Amino acid sequence: MEGCEVVILGSGNVATHLARAIDKIYHVVQVYSPTESHAASLANSLRDCNYTDRIEDIYTDADIYIISVSDDSIKSVITSMPEVRGIVAHTSGSVGIETFTGHMKHAGVFYPLQTFSKDADVDIREVPFFLEASDDDTLHSLESLARGLSEKVYHADSKQRQILHIAAVFACNFFNHLLDVSTEILAEKGYSLDVLKPLIYVTAAKALDSGAYDAQTGPAVRGDLNTIYKHLEALEADRKDIYRLISQSIIDRHKIHKKI
Amino acid sequence: MEGCEVVILGSGNVATHLARAIDKIYHVVQVYSPTESHAASLANSLRDCNYTDRIEDIYTDADIYIISVSDDSIKSVITSMPEVRGIVAHTSGSVGIETFTGHMKHAGVFYPLQTFSKDADVDIREVPFFLEASDDDTLHSLESLARGLSEKVYHADSKQRQILHIAAVFACNFFNHLLDVSTEILAEKGYSLDVLKPLIYVTAAKALDSGAYDAQTGPAVRGDLNTIYKHLEALEADRKDIYRLISQSIIDRHKIHKKI
Repeated sequence: MEGCEVVILGSGNVATHLARAIDKIYHVVQVYSPTESHAASLANSLRDCNYTDRIEDIYTDADIYIISVSDDSIKSVITSMPEVRGIVAHTSGSVGIETFTGHMKHAGVFYPLQTFSKDADVDIREVPFFLEASDDDTLHSLESLARGLSEKVYHADSKQRQILHIAAVFACNFFNHLLDVSTEILAEKGYSLDVLKPLIYVTAAKALDSGAYDAQTGPAVRGDLNTIYKHLEALEADRKDIYRLISQSIIDRHKIHKKI
Repeated sequence: MEGCEVVILGSGNVATHLARAIDKIYHVVQVYSPTESHAASLANSLRDCNYTDRIEDIYTDADIYIISVSDDSIKSVITSMPEVRGIVAHTSGSVGIETFTGHMKHAGVFYPLQTFSKDADVDIREVPFFLEASDDDTLHSLESLARGLSEKVYHADSKQRQILHIAAVFACNFFNHLLDVSTEILAEKGYSLDVLKPLIYVTAAKALDSGAYDAQTGPAVRGDLNTIYKHLEALEADRKDIYRLISQSIIDRHKIHKKI
């Protein structure tokens, strides 16, 4: 696979990070984007790579085609691509593999579980990749590519990707909202979220090292209803509801047998 | 204050981390712990430091006394200490300064907002210290000490410490519980929380860098009720309640005008 040729369809954050990483192990021969300047800019940052803004002009003889566009555009890229020799994979966590049915024989999902920003450097070796494919040979090819990029390669069908998404909603989207609530609470007394920075990172590190169940601290897991009631008194609206519900959930999870 | 003499009362995680940090800028002359071996072990890790397990034997002529024991034991340490020349401060976030009233003239609170583990190294310069004192001279002395240890020194009275505590419950204790929920959800499909590690750290970093409000992502802030309903269908019991409540809270916070 050393001389393996790859075409990247897309020029956004995911496409950019993937193209640059893939270019270190395979040969990215072409970038397609409907916006020519975007295609050119990404292609020119790679070793020896052409670009096009016309999807009918993409090379048809490459080994792997990575479609890294917005979820809504995947289908139209698939249907407007010319017939190609190689395998075709999209990078979305929420679009099923059946989107390829009737269009490509060798297709797959090549899903990196990370948010990519244009500027921020990402250590791609730490990014988990979740793969699914139409057949064993295609899975094998996508696996070789993923293992060349990252140390963390997993299989995931649609149901498993849904579970990953739900878990990410709790651990990332909801976590962020808790940080938003904290920011507002702190602002009332003139503090910035920065004062919690060391605590937040230690909380994440401990949960990842020793397991979140064992790492639980705070008034709820101590069964300290006294403190919980004082905090509830100081809170309003949905903050109060969130505080009560999560505290009770911690109490129940740790079998404290108390009711707020 | 270069030759300032400090006595540490306590030998737990906070006492140990503080004693070692203080020993680099002032002179920790004595460690007290009711368990002699603990007092000896901490004192022997310092430059030139005695120890005692008898509270009546603590030096009475030091400049600063740091009481770093469990919340429940602070009062009894205060009442059984001999009269001392220097100022006395405890390190608890949840015990008020009035615990000193009638016992010490120059007293204060010297509260580091971090969880300390015996083994884990902590960059004390990053730890925020929150100070309160009975009088301006005492506050000034505690401030000099804190600024010698950390770049982040703040004032906080009891009300402010309560707000810090509530914010920490949201951003750390509740965050940890979300990680616990995620761990369980992932385990059902054979994944470990590790697969979310890069996402979790990027979420924390983005919220701290650009503000959690602007950093919010996920189905709720997109108003994607379709995905939210699918996720709710896949969830049970209090996980479902937490998902619904926090999603609605995000929707309301971002003025999406939708109802789950």
